Amino acid sequence: MPAPHLAVIGGGQLARMMAPPAVALGIRLRLLAEAGDVSAAQVIGDHLVGDHTNLADLRDAVGDAPVVTFDHEHVPPEHLQALAAEGHACRPSPDALLFAQDKGDMRVRLSLLGIPSPVFELLSEDLADAIDDMHDFGYPAVVKTTRGGYDGKGVWVVRSADDLAEPFSVGQELMAEELVDFRRELSALVARSPSGEVRAYPVVESRQVDGVCSEVIAPAPDLDPALAAEARQIAERIATELEVTGILAVEMFETTDGRILVNELAMRPHNTGHWSIEGAETSQFENHLRAVLDLPLGPTTARQPWSVMVNVLGGAVEDLLVQRAIALAAEPGVHVHLYGKAVKPGRKVGHVTATGIDLDDTRARARRSAALLTDG
Amino acid sequence: MPAPHLAVIGGGQLARMMAPPAVALGIRLRLLAEAGDVSAAQVIGDHLVGDHTNLADLRDAVGDAPVVTFDHEHVPPEHLQALAAEGHACRPSPDALLFAQDKGDMRVRLSLLGIPSPVFELLSEDLADAIDDMHDFGYPAVVKTTRGGYDGKGVWVVRSADDLAEPFSVGQELMAEELVDFRRELSALVARSPSGEVRAYPVVESRQVDGVCSEVIAPAPDLDPALAAEARQIAERIATELEVTGILAVEMFETTDGRILVNELAMRPHNTGHWSIEGAETSQFENHLRAVLDLPLGPTTARQPWSVMVNVLGGAVEDLLVQRAIALAAEPGVHVHLYGKAVKPGRKVGHVTATGIDLDDTRARARRSAALLTDG
Repeated sequence: MPAPHLAVIGGGQLARMMAPPAVALGIRLRLLAEAGDVSAAQVIGDHLVGDHTNLADLRDAVGDAPVVTFDHEHVPPEHLQALAAEGHACRPSPDALLFAQDKGDMRVRLSLLGIPSPVFELLSEDLADAIDDMHDFGYPAVVKTTRGGYDGKGVWVVRSADDLAEPFSVGQELMAEELVDFRRELSALVARSPSGEVRAYPVVESRQVDGVCSEVIAPAPDLDPALAAEARQIAERIATELEVTGILAVEMFETTDGRILVNELAMRPHNTGHWSIEGAETSQFENHLRAVLDLPLGPTTARQPWSVMVNVLGGAVEDLLVQRAIALAAEPGVHVHLYGKAVKPGRKVGHVTATGIDLDDTRARARRSAALLTDG
Repeated sequence: MPAPHLAVIGGGQLARMMAPPAVALGIRLRLLAEAGDVSAAQVIGDHLVGDHTNLADLRDAVGDAPVVTFDHEHVPPEHLQALAAEGHACRPSPDALLFAQDKGDMRVRLSLLGIPSPVFELLSEDLADAIDDMHDFGYPAVVKTTRGGYDGKGVWVVRSADDLAEPFSVGQELMAEELVDFRRELSALVARSPSGEVRAYPVVESRQVDGVCSEVIAPAPDLDPALAAEARQIAERIATELEVTGILAVEMFETTDGRILVNELAMRPHNTGHWSIEGAETSQFENHLRAVLDLPLGPTTARQPWSVMVNVLGGAVEDLLVQRAIALAAEPGVHVHLYGKAVKPGRKVGHVTATGIDLDDTRARARRSAALLTDG
């Protein structure tokens, strides 16, 4: 009897990178893809093209799959509730996913849990009232849409009431947060299964350029062990309290005065965990599959002292396949991952990971490979 | 413009395990499969069902793919010549593959190269003449079919002329070889690209039960460094002299008097290289793809002091998916690979690999996991 399918909603590179561990573990994936040639549809033969905001399409793709998981957080909660009511286990569940979908709800919930977070305030819908809110809140501040932002989109630094016009022009619910004076960004990933098993990955440093993740160093260099333990415990606590299933990524600030504050949550494999494919005993993609199917989780320990992941963003290189040979020739030991996407400026089209015993050397190799794939 | 396809002939687990590195490197695979549900067809969506001994089916599957590679050595040489004449690069080439297809030709060629091999003789087609041949050759000896044998099939130990009846009943060309008094079996894998780049993996020990590979230890424990170097050089020399492209596996005997003798050749990823998926910097499957596409090869060095691979053969366990959870719970850090095959007694249905710094512990973990998947 063939294995029951695991349904995956969304055809981006995160779903694509679930395919290799599914091959190893004998897990059959069925995909709902935005189009027949999107990243994951190229490598998951059993895919259906449809719209993840359309319940009929979701039902068609899920079929009789007992478990459904996700490439992204954009499936409407009411559709997830419908699928759950029809007997499909959504992992993460709609109740958990809400806190990755809505930053306002997330902030309120984490506050109730006493998890260290930036000071925040939900803004009134009316601009004049919001200007009053901000007057009390103070400037400068960060203003964000509570929903739908990613990779720096939907985030503004406001320095006066005049700066509120642009966020308000988007027409979405907004919130204000303190402008955190941070030394760097950290990310803590955990895998959690429905049985409650939790495994935490080493805390990593994430470097952003223009709001987009550029480079990840695992583990975060020179991180105070007490802060590393706190970051890991925060991620484990959020996963457990919110009953997350699968991978939870907790993006954090390390403030200049040595504190950890939670920035964002993602409930799926995350860019800051790509290093784990080669760098950890069990990759985030394998542990995501193991977690959502309630299989025992694999060890999350690092396999090498250092792993450095650098994203390949669309740049001057037009033909990634020609450039792949040049990058492999220059750095044959750097692991190249291409997502099968057309190159567009700034678009994530791949990543590379180097592992090693010397951080400077490891980072230099990863950067050289990524630069060859980006700008030639 | 999408990448040109790489055509893969044969839908077994070796083709299946090419899929994960193809995902990472952005290589599109197109498969000729024996049936729609065979091991590799489950994970390579772009597959055509057909017969690899039928040139029309081969042409349909290959289409406009510039390069063709293989899951096995059973495509008739004349069909490979036809595909080559039509502009498809067969890797390995039919001229090289011949020496993996025909053990008689292989022995003659290796003798001419001065590569240490067992004493051998091609036997006459007529039984009475063959009895004369064997009288001169001497008993006991090994008799093999020159073509088509694998996993101990097509091999007999003969102790007198009476024992020749059974091999002759098969009706294939036969050869005799000295019965080597060996301490253990070794395997040396190399990857070679059409440009001539060669990378050798650490020499491993391969343990056989009833002619079937049961366990592989990488590197071979307590192997004299001079013998390890000789084994590696033999494999590199064969790959270069025979102009092999892709992975070449050279199975060898380490004799009780401390010599290396070449036993068999395979020109594809090999069971004795499965440890490299987790145990080496670049797996044999990734280097096979890189080699046949003439991309620069990746490092073949070990990532851990020890890797132990144990095959999962069909046994008492009927439902591998139920047992998978039990094996992962018992040994969460052992890497489980299932091939999507129905369980039949003795059939290779998967393998597991453990890596570690202590050989006894690493082997014990791998064996425990494999035993749970085999006999429960």
